[in-house]
Amino acid sequence: MEKNLLNPLDVMQECAQLALLGKGYTKTNPVVGAVVANQTEILSRGWHQSFGGPHAEVNAIDSCLVPTEGLDLYVTLEPCSHQGKTPPCVEKIVSSGIKRVFIGVVDPNPVNAGKGLEYLKKHGVEVYVGYMEDLCASIIEDFAKYITDKKHYYTFKTAQSLDGKIATSTGDSKWITSKASREYTHYMRAVSDAILVGVGTVNADDPELNVRHIKSDRDPFKIVLDPNGRMLLDRKLVKNSADKLIYVTCNDNDVSDKLNGLGADIITLGGDGQLDLNKLSDELVKRDILNVMIEGGGKTTGKFFDAGLVDKVNMFIAPILLGGDTVSIAGKGVASVAEGYRLKEIQTKQFESDLYISGKVTDFKQPILDLTEYVRGCCACGCSRDDD
Amino acid sequence: MEKNLLNPLDVMQECAQLALLGKGYTKTNPVVGAVVANQTEILSRGWHQSFGGPHAEVNAIDSCLVPTEGLDLYVTLEPCSHQGKTPPCVEKIVSSGIKRVFIGVVDPNPVNAGKGLEYLKKHGVEVYVGYMEDLCASIIEDFAKYITDKKHYYTFKTAQSLDGKIATSTGDSKWITSKASREYTHYMRAVSDAILVGVGTVNADDPELNVRHIKSDRDPFKIVLDPNGRMLLDRKLVKNSADKLIYVTCNDNDVSDKLNGLGADIITLGGDGQLDLNKLSDELVKRDILNVMIEGGGKTTGKFFDAGLVDKVNMFIAPILLGGDTVSIAGKGVASVAEGYRLKEIQTKQFESDLYISGKVTDFKQPILDLTEYVRGCCACGCSRDDD
Repeated sequence: MEKNLLNPLDVMQECAQLALLGKGYTKTNPVVGAVVANQTEILSRGWHQSFGGPHAEVNAIDSCLVPTEGLDLYVTLEPCSHQGKTPPCVEKIVSSGIKRVFIGVVDPNPVNAGKGLEYLKKHGVEVYVGYMEDLCASIIEDFAKYITDKKHYYTFKTAQSLDGKIATSTGDSKWITSKASREYTHYMRAVSDAILVGVGTVNADDPELNVRHIKSDRDPFKIVLDPNGRMLLDRKLVKNSADKLIYVTCNDNDVSDKLNGLGADIITLGGDGQLDLNKLSDELVKRDILNVMIEGGGKTTGKFFDAGLVDKVNMFIAPILLGGDTVSIAGKGVASVAEGYRLKEIQTKQFESDLYISGKVTDFKQPILDLTEYVRGCCACGCSRDDD
Repeated sequence: MEKNLLNPLDVMQECAQLALLGKGYTKTNPVVGAVVANQTEILSRGWHQSFGGPHAEVNAIDSCLVPTEGLDLYVTLEPCSHQGKTPPCVEKIVSSGIKRVFIGVVDPNPVNAGKGLEYLKKHGVEVYVGYMEDLCASIIEDFAKYITDKKHYYTFKTAQSLDGKIATSTGDSKWITSKASREYTHYMRAVSDAILVGVGTVNADDPELNVRHIKSDRDPFKIVLDPNGRMLLDRKLVKNSADKLIYVTCNDNDVSDKLNGLGADIITLGGDGQLDLNKLSDELVKRDILNVMIEGGGKTTGKFFDAGLVDKVNMFIAPILLGGDTVSIAGKGVASVAEGYRLKEIQTKQFESDLYISGKVTDFKQPILDLTEYVRGCCACGCSRDDD
């Protein structure tokens, strides 16, 4: 039977799926997936598995069981041309004899942007740029924000009723949404560097904020905002996860002293009862925390919206009405409808009877797409894309 | 060309669509649609167009241009066997020589239930019961509630953000949802007997509560709840629609006196600053108002939910987040998630970028379905349904 030629778009989609396997493990590096193939078959796969470990391209090339001379490499992100924790990937590609490299998007990191593919071209590798760009850019938006703004990426997650409530008047919230929704929430936790809540949630609900409804070896940091040192010390977060706890307060207090003794990371931001969330961002970035999922109550969440810090929302909405005033997003709110956060790139799924709506507030993908488009159309870069 | 036999299910669906043309015009009667047909063609159509006017069956038979002897009649609801504003439909059917009658559902009105089809059988008409029962029952749920509970049907409508807000902190609400959503709202108004709001909405937003975004000759009553006589008299509702205004207050006051002089209908329920919503229901039913759409703010809406009075919700949800505390449903809310109002028979549509979710809180359809099932399976009724 004659084999069909591989469709580069299909292969790149597979690379993106491989990349996502690294989500949560790569710290300040982007997730990347790669594949070595001939014209009809994928021969090996790789992804960036951990910060400091080999890059996706290297993993794919090293795991190929046949000689790589003359083969094709597909990779979601432009290969690196600079020495980091590991040697430049472009050197590895050239020395492996790879003939053609298909790249999803150009690296938004100015250290590398365009240089990786220039190097490859200069060394006789055929380079094709811009495959499944949207997808390949989408999976590294947190990295793009970090590179552009030196800030981490905030995802807000809520499990609410149709009328926007996260609990009843008596505080009951178990369970507004379905088991399937809660399981997916644990997947989201597994791919986050940290989960953030306010002290109100910790004291009232005693959450664990770990990954237990799905199999995973990931345990994200747990950030608790407690400006005035009100956190109860008998909480599960203290008993089970003090070493993963990042306790944020205005000034040192009894709680911070005790948590410090238990191995928690203490961030004191100063101020008189109000936390400076921009200062918090700086502190978290210093700790290489690139994406944070806000799972707090409406008050905490409202502060992040009021400060314009939320990048993405993941909302599980159950077909139930609760009434009352325990809202998912409180705070001051916007002054006019025009200033409201209109979601972009909305995706919907269904989890049992719940509606899941995911949407982006910010857009760190477009600059990557623009850069990729520019590089692809630019003669100077020597890009050899064949438009036939 | 040989003609295909009519499928009774298709014909009954058309009857239901005809019935809906009467929505808003039939007052305390149910909407009904009917069709006269031979085995291959629909020959005439009819629906109940107005309270006191001829019923759907009569309209269909009278508009048939060929003799009706030996023909079939399809009707969404069991034909009436009693003298009301018009003579019994069953007599008309028998005298018209109709051979077979296909009935959607049995009439939940005890005055008629089962008697209509018994009469037909007794007079040699073949009767087949139970076609598109779900649809045919669904279009008369308001009537069924009226018959069962002597109460009218409450539909809650909201245009809100994903986080459940109907306005910003400054009161801005124009426009959270799309033009298409607002147009559909006007269709909903056109098929409602009355629109209900609280005095807060009247004073703050000065709404017209009429039907203007779609063509219609319907102008529903406008019910304003104003327990303490705070309503401003320069509002559009007073200037343009005093004759359609139903002003509800605790005790006579300056506002009620003035509105009374302008031709508004005044309902005084007594009490000290809190309206008794069950008393209100009695008053509205006395006025033959069968279905009311609540378009009030969160406070007003919350009271109806707290009193367990809402039957159905129609929610337009825009993909925007507003924060703040101006919620669509306030009130005390339920105490536990288990007591929350889980929506049934959920239907979704999209209006531009808005999600529309419609769902039922109560169920007045099931008794009609049960009754229909009972009558269909019951030998005593003489029903001759052929199950081949």
